[in-house]
Amino acid sequence: MVLGAGFGGLTFAKDFPSHMARVTVVDQQNHHVFQPLLYQVATAGLSAPDIAQPIRSILRDKPNLTVLMAGVKSIDLAARRVELDHGTLEFDYLVIALGGQTSYFGHDEWEQFAPGLKTLDDAVRLRRNMLLAYEQAEVETDLRKREELMTTVVVGGGPTGVELAGSFAELARTVLYRDFDHIDPRQARILLVEGSPNILSGFPADLSASALRQLTKLGVEVKLNTRVTAIRAGEVELDGVPLRAGNLVWAAGVGASPVTRSLGVETDRAGRIKVLPDLSLPGHPHVFAIGDLAALTDAKGVVVPGVAQGAMQGGAHVAKLLAYDIAVGDRPPAQRAAFAYWDKGNMATIGRSKAIAQVGRLHLSGILAWGMWLAIHLVFLVGLRNRISVFLQWIYAYFTYRRGARIIMGEDRR
Amino acid sequence: MVLGAGFGGLTFAKDFPSHMARVTVVDQQNHHVFQPLLYQVATAGLSAPDIAQPIRSILRDKPNLTVLMAGVKSIDLAARRVELDHGTLEFDYLVIALGGQTSYFGHDEWEQFAPGLKTLDDAVRLRRNMLLAYEQAEVETDLRKREELMTTVVVGGGPTGVELAGSFAELARTVLYRDFDHIDPRQARILLVEGSPNILSGFPADLSASALRQLTKLGVEVKLNTRVTAIRAGEVELDGVPLRAGNLVWAAGVGASPVTRSLGVETDRAGRIKVLPDLSLPGHPHVFAIGDLAALTDAKGVVVPGVAQGAMQGGAHVAKLLAYDIAVGDRPPAQRAAFAYWDKGNMATIGRSKAIAQVGRLHLSGILAWGMWLAIHLVFLVGLRNRISVFLQWIYAYFTYRRGARIIMGEDRR
Repeated sequence: MVLGAGFGGLTFAKDFPSHMARVTVVDQQNHHVFQPLLYQVATAGLSAPDIAQPIRSILRDKPNLTVLMAGVKSIDLAARRVELDHGTLEFDYLVIALGGQTSYFGHDEWEQFAPGLKTLDDAVRLRRNMLLAYEQAEVETDLRKREELMTTVVVGGGPTGVELAGSFAELARTVLYRDFDHIDPRQARILLVEGSPNILSGFPADLSASALRQLTKLGVEVKLNTRVTAIRAGEVELDGVPLRAGNLVWAAGVGASPVTRSLGVETDRAGRIKVLPDLSLPGHPHVFAIGDLAALTDAKGVVVPGVAQGAMQGGAHVAKLLAYDIAVGDRPPAQRAAFAYWDKGNMATIGRSKAIAQVGRLHLSGILAWGMWLAIHLVFLVGLRNRISVFLQWIYAYFTYRRGARIIMGEDRR
Repeated sequence: MVLGAGFGGLTFAKDFPSHMARVTVVDQQNHHVFQPLLYQVATAGLSAPDIAQPIRSILRDKPNLTVLMAGVKSIDLAARRVELDHGTLEFDYLVIALGGQTSYFGHDEWEQFAPGLKTLDDAVRLRRNMLLAYEQAEVETDLRKREELMTTVVVGGGPTGVELAGSFAELARTVLYRDFDHIDPRQARILLVEGSPNILSGFPADLSASALRQLTKLGVEVKLNTRVTAIRAGEVELDGVPLRAGNLVWAAGVGASPVTRSLGVETDRAGRIKVLPDLSLPGHPHVFAIGDLAALTDAKGVVVPGVAQGAMQGGAHVAKLLAYDIAVGDRPPAQRAAFAYWDKGNMATIGRSKAIAQVGRLHLSGILAWGMWLAIHLVFLVGLRNRISVFLQWIYAYFTYRRGARIIMGEDRR
């Protein structure tokens, strides 16, 4: 049984030869989301369905495989039982791939004022908040309040925060400015707040510095070494100094799914399960954890990062391991059973012709990195229809400086 | 000032020479929705942004024109004042084009169990309800309950009801059936309930009969002369006989926006304003009503129908009239001032290669009418990007029998 149909769970489900054993894939959503492009839905570049695909549809051709849309309430490892929203499932083998969720480091009350970005619903909510802030600024006569409404604060200088801040800035300066009469969105302030001395700290120093320059060029104010001390409605406190903002986004913390805490196994500070080298759980060789909720330093001493590649390679590894186990009746020798992460490279996009990329010793930034980012994201996007649709929308946006999804939806209109 | 940016209000705003007078366009949404394709969003064929365009963006090139996103609370005709959600606006001339809303004929409590289809949010809600019902059926072990969950009831045999029922049937029989293991969506029941003896009663009898045959061929059970006597959670009463259904949709009634009741002018049973031949309000020559909230039998004795054509022609007419009024300082003679509806034809689609169309004396049905429907809807869809996107998705769906937007979104997961 597989819990979660993100990059990890889906790769397992695709790779595992399902004629060998019944597979049940459980996910709370009916769709797989291509998370690396979620920020483009939040910033009105793409439609939600463009980056999602029904899980049933992706796995439709696998024999002996069932997809269940259900939430996971708890897992009883000893009894080999998973309790779902409705009903209970028993398993012989279990792959836990439920991923992460936005973490507010103990300040869950901040969520209502500064939402995070993990699901399509989150993305549509961010899009709504951002577009509504400009609509409110347009009718606001008080100049100070107008400036506040046109201020966006993104908390967290990781890839998601950088992508969001860059895209918000570009949207205001190149797209929205033509739409309004009373405000000039080119004057909008976009702040990116990072607690550490660097943005994109997972990258080498030269690329991180390049990303900072590219972001600043787009007009994003980057505040390094700055901590968020409080968040209230329309207001964030930076190192104790309050700043009012019409649009607040939280991209600072990702913690593991809370289910990990109910397992009775050791977790790290972020709640990730400390798995054995073969990705199984200590004391539970028939249970595996992959992706964002697993913590592992692999055989070569590499810390497996919480990115799509890590989850996908983990899923593929466990699929092979279980197929061997079922065919042979035993596990392969420890050396072969151990997971080795292959770092294919790392990239982040900042804006039009602006990105950074690292492939081995090769460090790229600017238009070359951007082109590579576009190509790789198109190739890995699930579904031919989505690939074509996203490709055409990117071309359209590139030449017209427009974004097609500037639509405010949802009941929550303040 | 124009209230509403549907077909009527938008046509007025585009046609009126705005250098002659300041124009303010007020709409509750930030986007114009192409309503004729709303049913395709509800049935997972298209994404919401594909059929919507930001109003600001459409009218960006008009000088002297402001777009306001706000709800209309009340209109004081004598004081020439409109009260909005936030603030008040004064006007010299007013065009009321707020359109209609779903009407439950005094049974507003049915809305929660059988939602209607007027906005993008409605469409995403219908899509969610429909897809969730199949997901629930997939995990339901009780055979009778499973059948209930796989039953869809569409109330109302007008164009929207027919399009929805046809599209739901096609989705189940040609798309979804490959996705599930425990249920066979080809066995799903789709019922269309109509109180009168005919579906699509606005069409000539031969076309209405043809539509009925085409719908039945798709597997829709059409219940004519059947009244809905009650609606409860998951249950509808047809002539007093209860029927349980996992998916209930209300497409039976459209009433005018409730704002019409506060005006102190005469309205018809559906709440539509009885306008004078020039589309102005009796006793208020500077106030006009167009589109779904206006009731008029034109000079030639034709009842102006509540369709896009009627609203657009009304908007164009009032734009001309006001330009004349401002330029000349008077209205044109009564004969020229009177609105004459030009019926360009009428069409409704039922499914793949299935449609009916009437253009003057020409009656078409089947694939010819369907081709015409596709072409006309593509041409009239607002926005080049949307046109390309919809065109490609239709081609894709035609050849692959897939639908790209089978995504369940929204918090309301039951």
